[in-house]
Amino acid sequence: MTEKIVKTAEDLQDLMVHFRREFHEFPELSWTEFRTASRVAINLESMGFKTLVGEEIMCGSLMKNVPPAHELELQMERAKAQGAELPYLDRMKGGKTGVVGILETGKPGPVIAIRFDMDALPIIESDSSKHFPAREGFRSRNEGLMHSCGHDGHTAIGMGVAALLTKIRDELKGTIKLIFQPAEEGVQGGATSIIKMGVVDDADYMLSFHLGMAPLPATLFCETTGFLATTKFDINFIGKSAHSGANPEDGKSALLAAAAATMAMQGIYRHSAGASRISVGVFNSGTASNIVPDRAFLELETRGETTEINDFMKREVYRILEGAARMYDCEVDLRPEVVETGEAISAESDPELVALTKEIAEELDIFDAIEDSVSIGGSEDYTYFMERVQQKGGKALHFSVAADLKAKHHNELFDFSEDVLWKIAALLGVMIVRLK
Amino acid sequence: MTEKIVKTAEDLQDLMVHFRREFHEFPELSWTEFRTASRVAINLESMGFKTLVGEEIMCGSLMKNVPPAHELELQMERAKAQGAELPYLDRMKGGKTGVVGILETGKPGPVIAIRFDMDALPIIESDSSKHFPAREGFRSRNEGLMHSCGHDGHTAIGMGVAALLTKIRDELKGTIKLIFQPAEEGVQGGATSIIKMGVVDDADYMLSFHLGMAPLPATLFCETTGFLATTKFDINFIGKSAHSGANPEDGKSALLAAAAATMAMQGIYRHSAGASRISVGVFNSGTASNIVPDRAFLELETRGETTEINDFMKREVYRILEGAARMYDCEVDLRPEVVETGEAISAESDPELVALTKEIAEELDIFDAIEDSVSIGGSEDYTYFMERVQQKGGKALHFSVAADLKAKHHNELFDFSEDVLWKIAALLGVMIVRLK
Amino acid sequence: MTEKIVKTAEDLQDLMVHFRREFHEFPELSWTEFRTASRVAINLESMGFKTLVGEEIMCGSLMKNVPPAHELELQMERAKAQGAELPYLDRMKGGKTGVVGILETGKPGPVIAIRFDMDALPIIESDSSKHFPAREGFRSRNEGLMHSCGHDGHTAIGMGVAALLTKIRDELKGTIKLIFQPAEEGVQGGATSIIKMGVVDDADYMLSFHLGMAPLPATLFCETTGFLATTKFDINFIGKSAHSGANPEDGKSALLAAAAATMAMQGIYRHSAGASRISVGVFNSGTASNIVPDRAFLELETRGETTEINDFMKREVYRILEGAARMYDCEVDLRPEVVETGEAISAESDPELVALTKEIAEELDIFDAIEDSVSIGGSEDYTYFMERVQQKGGKALHFSVAADLKAKHHNELFDFSEDVLWKIAALLGVMIVRLK
Amino acid sequence: MTEKIVKTAEDLQDLMVHFRREFHEFPELSWTEFRTASRVAINLESMGFKTLVGEEIMCGSLMKNVPPAHELELQMERAKAQGAELPYLDRMKGGKTGVVGILETGKPGPVIAIRFDMDALPIIESDSSKHFPAREGFRSRNEGLMHSCGHDGHTAIGMGVAALLTKIRDELKGTIKLIFQPAEEGVQGGATSIIKMGVVDDADYMLSFHLGMAPLPATLFCETTGFLATTKFDINFIGKSAHSGANPEDGKSALLAAAAATMAMQGIYRHSAGASRISVGVFNSGTASNIVPDRAFLELETRGETTEINDFMKREVYRILEGAARMYDCEVDLRPEVVETGEAISAESDPELVALTKEIAEELDIFDAIEDSVSIGGSEDYTYFMERVQQKGGKALHFSVAADLKAKHHNELFDFSEDVLWKIAALLGVMIVRLK
Repeated sequence: MTEKIVKTAEDLQDLMVHFRREFHEFPELSWTEFRTASRVAINLESMGFKTLVGEEIMCGSLMKNVPPAHELELQMERAKAQGAELPYLDRMKGGKTGVVGILETGKPGPVIAIRFDMDALPIIESDSSKHFPAREGFRSRNEGLMHSCGHDGHTAIGMGVAALLTKIRDELKGTIKLIFQPAEEGVQGGATSIIKMGVVDDADYMLSFHLGMAPLPATLFCETTGFLATTKFDINFIGKSAHSGANPEDGKSALLAAAAATMAMQGIYRHSAGASRISVGVFNSGTASNIVPDRAFLELETRGETTEINDFMKREVYRILEGAARMYDCEVDLRPEVVETGEAISAESDPELVALTKEIAEELDIFDAIEDSVSIGGSEDYTYFMERVQQKGGKALHFSVAADLKAKHHNELFDFSEDVLWKIAALLGVMIVRLK
Repeated sequence: MTEKIVKTAEDLQDLMVHFRREFHEFPELSWTEFRTASRVAINLESMGFKTLVGEEIMCGSLMKNVPPAHELELQMERAKAQGAELPYLDRMKGGKTGVVGILETGKPGPVIAIRFDMDALPIIESDSSKHFPAREGFRSRNEGLMHSCGHDGHTAIGMGVAALLTKIRDELKGTIKLIFQPAEEGVQGGATSIIKMGVVDDADYMLSFHLGMAPLPATLFCETTGFLATTKFDINFIGKSAHSGANPEDGKSALLAAAAATMAMQGIYRHSAGASRISVGVFNSGTASNIVPDRAFLELETRGETTEINDFMKREVYRILEGAARMYDCEVDLRPEVVETGEAISAESDPELVALTKEIAEELDIFDAIEDSVSIGGSEDYTYFMERVQQKGGKALHFSVAADLKAKHHNELFDFSEDVLWKIAALLGVMIVRLK
Repeated sequence: MTEKIVKTAEDLQDLMVHFRREFHEFPELSWTEFRTASRVAINLESMGFKTLVGEEIMCGSLMKNVPPAHELELQMERAKAQGAELPYLDRMKGGKTGVVGILETGKPGPVIAIRFDMDALPIIESDSSKHFPAREGFRSRNEGLMHSCGHDGHTAIGMGVAALLTKIRDELKGTIKLIFQPAEEGVQGGATSIIKMGVVDDADYMLSFHLGMAPLPATLFCETTGFLATTKFDINFIGKSAHSGANPEDGKSALLAAAAATMAMQGIYRHSAGASRISVGVFNSGTASNIVPDRAFLELETRGETTEINDFMKREVYRILEGAARMYDCEVDLRPEVVETGEAISAESDPELVALTKEIAEELDIFDAIEDSVSIGGSEDYTYFMERVQQKGGKALHFSVAADLKAKHHNELFDFSEDVLWKIAALLGVMIVRLK
Repeated sequence: MTEKIVKTAEDLQDLMVHFRREFHEFPELSWTEFRTASRVAINLESMGFKTLVGEEIMCGSLMKNVPPAHELELQMERAKAQGAELPYLDRMKGGKTGVVGILETGKPGPVIAIRFDMDALPIIESDSSKHFPAREGFRSRNEGLMHSCGHDGHTAIGMGVAALLTKIRDELKGTIKLIFQPAEEGVQGGATSIIKMGVVDDADYMLSFHLGMAPLPATLFCETTGFLATTKFDINFIGKSAHSGANPEDGKSALLAAAAATMAMQGIYRHSAGASRISVGVFNSGTASNIVPDRAFLELETRGETTEINDFMKREVYRILEGAARMYDCEVDLRPEVVETGEAISAESDPELVALTKEIAEELDIFDAIEDSVSIGGSEDYTYFMERVQQKGGKALHFSVAADLKAKHHNELFDFSEDVLWKIAALLGVMIVRLK
């Protein structure tokens, strides 16, 4: 059986490469994965999965930072023009782009959920001939957007696993749920809006993974650790405009307040109890060089190895914002102007699943190397899935697979070796069969 | 004759109020004054002025910061939808929105040029009921744009002066040129692109004015002084993106470089030789809170009471930009990434014209008060007109008229008393008749 | 008579050079001018002036920033070792180093007061061979202190004028008061503490001057303008110390609060109504690199062309200090921790005295050039003398004399051409005789 | 035997308390531990230890940041006045305040070295009645200096161990070296200058410890981990002075350059590979509020969990210093003006010694709790001793003991429970006897 699964996964490699490049060519930001999600849905359905989308599996009130209606419409139009599957588009209105494919075997057995994420990033992809997607002709067609975190590969593996399961359907027991999640980047509710609908409440096992992480050949890390708690903030400073030549002294520059706050927040002391992060990622202010800017907008995030450390960072951020506003006589109305737009928690994999992963991997012998764990040093809203499943008595796992990265995640030259696609699909296939 | 002019101007007040409110309702930014300019042109033509627009009077290579083609097209579409005069739109392609109306009397006499500016600002107009335009129903229909510097009044006065001249045509000698200029805000070439085409090369006299300036009732300041030399910069910092959680140490934050540069530039020492200004008016950087931003864009400007002081400010700006880039390991390619997008010079009115203005104003006795001069503490590209006319042997004047301002220039509550419209038209009318 | 005065002044040039170099060699800071003042006093007395020092002419409660007792004692010891005149030292205890020499002619006539300042600055004097005092062997012997503002020359001229008056005593009328003032630098009460004692209450005329100002040969500026209002602040931030390696997050860095405040204060907007200044001149914080600093001390000053502008600067400073403290969770107890240690006002010379100065200077024809006025762009507590005399019905004047400066004031290479000493003495001598 | 040692240690508690309070009352900074070290030396000698001091055991060229000669002399005078032992003072000239006491048993056995550190910190000790040393009358008599890191306790324990060894001398084998080290704070060469002289080259075992660390009752942490690599910098910015009122534009403010550098260095990105630190601990600049400061001095330090991370921090610091200097047109001559004054490395205890410590502690049962390890999150030059001994084939250990701290290390309220003194002495005593 194991051998058959591995062979089948290998045979599906061409299909997965095809999907990966298709998804890569049409990257879509959080909550606008219309083309990607509709393509996933139609394929799941054609493979015999019970396919749920939109309102069936997503709670709108937990979706954060959804673009305004006209923007969603524009993106939907683009998706249509780029080959989205129309029957599904309507059901994804309002950015509800999640897809869940369910395979009920009819035989008694565990409920196993696997999560794949589908969203891309606002990065201009390199068009250098050194960059494989550019050279091979599948560079992003949506200029300014890019799959530079590997979610194109994740979704392609999801398609491969679906196909694999149909090919070994008779050997399966229990229920398998393939969850294709939007909006993982920036922890904006892609996970929680699905969890809220009870999708994983009955899961005995929950699996997910990330490819990339380290610049190594296909190396399996049986457990991903180091998920950081995180909080995102949207901040507005409000000052007072004035003519910068005629009467600058009447102005209250929101731009300067934001710059001073940025410098100070970046300098929050390191915490001795563990890792922390601060990142001011967006700064927009002003309309013309001769007007003292009366508005400034910041997007920033804090992280902490523990919730306590992240809370320390949050307190510092709030106080610095107040102080900077005072310095420049501006307002920063902490409620509701400072919106905490996203948060993630920490979580840990169940040791039994980690051990099982290692055992299977050693048996398969398809990875270049097998390591116990790797620390991500980042945040993932998959931790909410883990928390829910573990609270309900199930077990959860997150593993990682290195894939000869050409550049780090979120870089314009990010690329991975497609050779890991079938390897991860094979590993997941065998795990599904082995889990009781 | 003088009495007749004053009476005629008074009769034209309703017309000027009408135009002022129309222009106010449809504000347009620099190089996109399609609706305004085409309305000016058709009216000039119908009043019998030889009317020149677009390429006839504008040199494209001196037009700075012109929006990209698709943006111009969008604005043109909007202008059409808002009642622009179609025959003229085509001739204004590429943002060439200047209009010159020429009245040749056929009788020997001086060439007199008068300049009016037409552009609005990127400011959200107040909708408070205390704000007269909001209360009276002529608040900006172009949300985010506003006539908050009084150019709507300037253009309306231009229309009034044109009408006045037609009514006293038989009394006139020589040639009168009414110049309606785009893109005065930010000194982006609105003046120089017209000067280059020789429009004022034959002018014996050149006149212009600004309404507003001081919170006083209709007070004439016979001379505007204190024009500051100025330079505008567009600056791009280029760093390196990275995941702000997973490997922040690999990033080079262009956002932080721009913030540090902003703090330092704002702190350039005052110059003991006279007034200076520094204004960072626009700061845009970053795409998401979890990506170290690899790009940052700043728009800023320096000013100086003399060219030397402005040069000092420029040198400081250049050095600070280099230093900030070094601090954060970013690039700020000073050529061509730092674009000096606009410059203005200093200039002084000819005393004879100042004296004549005072003499006439005292005779008319229509202003609440008459003062010698007011200092603007700002920059004006009209100084280029003054320089050209004076170099060619002509004389130039700039005066100001206070108008019960409700708020300072460039403020969302800016408004002026419309009562000054006919008074300024009357003053200009009498000056035209008196100049030899 | 005029000729005689000029000749006598010329003959006194050697004496004034001698005094200038002696004072230069032994520079003394504010309130510790023990050696200088005692040498002035003994010479005045020996020339027959009624000589008042210490408590007779100084009000202690208006003396700001006086060093602590043990520091005063140290300076007094040094003065003794460097040849101070002992009989006077005792009378100058507590830093009361002012000296007033009074010449009562017994004949009816005006009361004329002339003020000279005596204090030096905390600057390390250059020992370059290009530096005249270094080359000629009269460089500062008090390492770290330097006469780099020309007060050595002022005091030497005072000695010269005293000598001149004794030589023309029979021609004099009325009363002449030569006032040698301590603590001019930093406006710490050197002037007001003397004024308070009524020293100039009966003055019909009050004169003073500054040498230097512009890099020109001996040029007389008949009026000094541009005195700026100013306020000095001593500021303490109080945070919380912590081990910077073991638990930095527990620290509240007063050093960072002070650095952020410094950056923001330096960037206070220019005021459109006239010149302003901000200067953070002293920053002291911290004891060791491995301790988060819990204290930071700043010395700073604001200036304004008018009291209103200086008040604007003060308000900004106060608000920024509060904001910076908030940002870093520190205290900056604005009362009494922020001490306003000094203030000066603006003032203007009486036109009659300016005109008289010009008239005499043209007649004497000893200056290389004569100009109407020069703007100082700085602050002077002499303005308090002017205010008092003018309030009491007298007239006041401040003029300046360029002196081929080798470097700007307050620079380690500051030096002036000694040739102006006798010229200024001659001008003052003739003025005394001419004033009615 | 074990029992006897514990009992003896308990009996020595009064002596150790006496020494602790004596050392606490007379704190001395790095390289000036004249009183402390001479008292240690005379006591070691009187107890029969071969006692080496000064040049015998210290290499001058590795001593960093030694105060200038006149400062050393002042401190030596104070030490004399406060009861230093004269015969030793002379041998400690130049700040060579290390002491080594050697006990040669004459019997074959291992060479065991134990290190104690003696220096205090520049902190003003609290005089609150809540502060035990203040209440009990042994608050620092050297105002501004304080034993706020527990080295007074370390040295007292050293005295106790010496006394203990003399009392069990007959049971001892091999050689025991008690090393009393100066200048541990700020890693200025206190360790390396002794190592260089070969003092521990023959050590089979090297032991040391720190008391405090955590706010717990007497808890033994059998291993101290988390030593951070560190580098200290002394930095000088050199600008150009100018009068801040008259011609600020001619100044180049070293103060502003240092403030901008401070803000930027504090904001160096966290490193994803492990802990890092940055601390600007000292900032001194300027002499008067009316002079643009031409000098600024910073003392700062970086730390890293690994040498690589610390190297990253160093590179950032160097680049930021250059950039800040450029911004303000100042010099920061990186060689030799930026002096790297101290560095420490990372190191790990030998597991056998950790295990032995745990075993003995469990047997003694005198601690309130026993834990495996505690992370220090700081730097220690003891790591150089560890490195040397381990390179030479010996084994090294560092453990920690919590002691009911009243406040964190380096705080003005720092204090520990003296009850741990005899417990640590007992533990060390038993270890000495057990080590083979």
